[in-house]
Amino acid sequence: MKNIIFFIAVLYYSLSFSQSDEVVIKSLYDNSLTDGKSYEWLDYLSNKIGGRLSGSANAEKAINWTKRELESLGLDKVWLQPVMVPKWVRGNPEISYIEMDNKKTDVNICALGGSIATPQSGIKASIIEVSGIEELKLLGKEKIQGKIVFFNRPMDATLIHTFKAYGGCVDQRYAGAMEAGKLGAVGVIIRSMNLKLDDFPHTGSMSYGNITVNQRIPSAAISTNDSEILSKKLKENHDLKFYLKQNCKQMEDVPSYNVIGEITGTEFPDKYIVVGGHLDSWDLADGAHDDGAGVVQSMEVLRLLKKNGIKPKHSIRVVLFMNEENGLRGGRKYAEIAKQKNEEHIFALESDSGGFTPRGFSFDCSDTDFNTILKWKPLFKPYLIHYFEKEGSGADIGPLKNESIVLAGLRPDSQRYFDYHHAATDTFEAVNKRELELGAATMTSLVYLVDKYGFK
Amino acid sequence: MKNIIFFIAVLYYSLSFSQSDEVVIKSLYDNSLTDGKSYEWLDYLSNKIGGRLSGSANAEKAINWTKRELESLGLDKVWLQPVMVPKWVRGNPEISYIEMDNKKTDVNICALGGSIATPQSGIKASIIEVSGIEELKLLGKEKIQGKIVFFNRPMDATLIHTFKAYGGCVDQRYAGAMEAGKLGAVGVIIRSMNLKLDDFPHTGSMSYGNITVNQRIPSAAISTNDSEILSKKLKENHDLKFYLKQNCKQMEDVPSYNVIGEITGTEFPDKYIVVGGHLDSWDLADGAHDDGAGVVQSMEVLRLLKKNGIKPKHSIRVVLFMNEENGLRGGRKYAEIAKQKNEEHIFALESDSGGFTPRGFSFDCSDTDFNTILKWKPLFKPYLIHYFEKEGSGADIGPLKNESIVLAGLRPDSQRYFDYHHAATDTFEAVNKRELELGAATMTSLVYLVDKYGFK
Repeated sequence: MKNIIFFIAVLYYSLSFSQSDEVVIKSLYDNSLTDGKSYEWLDYLSNKIGGRLSGSANAEKAINWTKRELESLGLDKVWLQPVMVPKWVRGNPEISYIEMDNKKTDVNICALGGSIATPQSGIKASIIEVSGIEELKLLGKEKIQGKIVFFNRPMDATLIHTFKAYGGCVDQRYAGAMEAGKLGAVGVIIRSMNLKLDDFPHTGSMSYGNITVNQRIPSAAISTNDSEILSKKLKENHDLKFYLKQNCKQMEDVPSYNVIGEITGTEFPDKYIVVGGHLDSWDLADGAHDDGAGVVQSMEVLRLLKKNGIKPKHSIRVVLFMNEENGLRGGRKYAEIAKQKNEEHIFALESDSGGFTPRGFSFDCSDTDFNTILKWKPLFKPYLIHYFEKEGSGADIGPLKNESIVLAGLRPDSQRYFDYHHAATDTFEAVNKRELELGAATMTSLVYLVDKYGFK
Repeated sequence: MKNIIFFIAVLYYSLSFSQSDEVVIKSLYDNSLTDGKSYEWLDYLSNKIGGRLSGSANAEKAINWTKRELESLGLDKVWLQPVMVPKWVRGNPEISYIEMDNKKTDVNICALGGSIATPQSGIKASIIEVSGIEELKLLGKEKIQGKIVFFNRPMDATLIHTFKAYGGCVDQRYAGAMEAGKLGAVGVIIRSMNLKLDDFPHTGSMSYGNITVNQRIPSAAISTNDSEILSKKLKENHDLKFYLKQNCKQMEDVPSYNVIGEITGTEFPDKYIVVGGHLDSWDLADGAHDDGAGVVQSMEVLRLLKKNGIKPKHSIRVVLFMNEENGLRGGRKYAEIAKQKNEEHIFALESDSGGFTPRGFSFDCSDTDFNTILKWKPLFKPYLIHYFEKEGSGADIGPLKNESIVLAGLRPDSQRYFDYHHAATDTFEAVNKRELELGAATMTSLVYLVDKYGFK
């Protein structure tokens, strides 16, 4: 019986890929690790350009530079896809302190993306701590009115997938000001989405939904260390005062671009495979992990294919999406144009989870397609790529979703991601060269297999 | 057929562990991640004690402090096991430069552990670059005599397991001076065992074997950046001079200790399970990854067992081995005493590969025992622990090897390990709290399963 099962297994797998695939994939990894461009590109993007919030001068620099770099790879086409993006500016550094017993304690804080400013003189008010929107609503207008609301529910440290811990907290950041504004609060501060205790505030997008302009209140993120301190002081003195001054501003939308490069397919030029990351980043650091890593890895996929002499059957595009962080306009625009042009996309792969050691992929697809993919899994074992799960894919490729496309996200080790995410710590130095390069090779290998075998 | 296989599989696995194991293991992980002591311990060991080379005052402090901490856990026994260890001291900081065209370029260098000093005035000589011991021997006495030999074979970046890349290079460090000394060289410098290009020299042990005292020559490691520079300059000018001054010294052996703690087994008190790391470290930094991480994780295993109310059937020992780095005297002593006392050890687990995200374990055991272990693998899947391979285990538990014991090593992600290994970069800040804690929980879970089910 054991032998029969073994025989069936061998037969089964031998139909799913060939021995030459092992050789090609080894060559992709070797090349990425010894002669890759991803790290050098990330150095430039992080250190010569830096943070690149949508609509900023740096975002424009990043568009022009990545376009030039893609052109230097000898792809079949490189172009810019116009898209209007929101423009939000932070303005002067935020000022904030706790005032208790006539003593001021400075606080590490940053405005959330999309927030309005405080008045010029700042706001000073009593503070009320809540564990989330539910508690806020239970407290109601009477308890909230005139106060600054402090959302302090931490990320759940017991979740092994740290993105799940993020998902369980981020409603505070996104909708906290909207909900508190409805109840007459004068401001909102949010515990940073960070599993580590440190002094860095983490920004990120927030929304006022459709509340009226006079209900809109300033919102900011406070570092995890200062969240702990503030919470402790509040227990000692409910009446302490909190001061916040910020002068960020939402401007008019401005024109920007997705950057796209293509190797045109030899057999199915009208069927597309997309690999991408987002070119915009928050403004507090260089956006090296989020999502500089995904950008350079996606560029590296096409470079590695060319370098290894692989002439893909399908057209393979790298798409560097603009405005993932505070609008997703780039991702929506790409899908909109693809639909307009009737372009059939069979596969899209996004890297937007940091440049850490790759563990595998998450897939959003049919069971049939997932089974096809699982047959390739043994090819990844030598590279310790073991994680193949049906889950979400990525924000920018989400708008491409339909009944036939396979969407996928690279899943790197997530333990350190939120140490850096949207904070001043997200710098080039926080990215390890080998980890970044392994991710690029892993993505390229999957794109190679999808292109070669397609989905049945 | 599919259903039958599924049924057999379910039956098979259902005999290998029970549902309550999932609950216990979840509790171990939760506890390590939310209420663990490993990170706090590592902070103390790294920042309050620091580097702890065998025979140093810091090594003694580490012995006393870990003993006290283990005593505070309420174990059944805590004791010190005497062992004589070598004592080598670095002395003053090394001085080194390249002299070319009457210009001196400083070089980042450090004496290798066990090396002799240079004369007071240093040595200055021509340099000859080789790719390894084989090339050295081919060049022979004529080419080597009177020169400083520069071993410059880099670690192989294409190996996914970076320890394999280390294994493929470390003969240069360990035996380079011995082999070059036989051929009349006056000194040896070794490219640091580091996959990253940076300015930090990495020390490590070397040996003169049994060559005569007058054949012994000073040996030092040079940073990877400076290796590149030196190699380039050598191509420009074969006759450049290299200067090295170091005043390290091998002293007489001194008394030291392994630190041991035990929870005595309820059913098989005379059968032992060992979990350990090494308490000594190199002197250039705090030895946070190597092997502070393994020390605190091993201590945490016993703390987590007690905290979770697990009363093990077998006696479980944490052993903090002394002198792994330059002698392995602690590991040998522990095995020697165990043999003398006829103690039956069924399992030993070592953590000495850094405090990075755990990927799994390597095992040195019979196929039968390995199959028993593989049945537990599904229990680890929620924690992304996927790597179960028959390979080596660890240096300190190696001397326990016999026909019946199962030896195992924790296998964390290895991509960043050699950025820190034996260099000034191996500090507390280089260790991520969650990654360390996940390792401790993973070790505890395996120890729990081995204790509960044993090996058939």
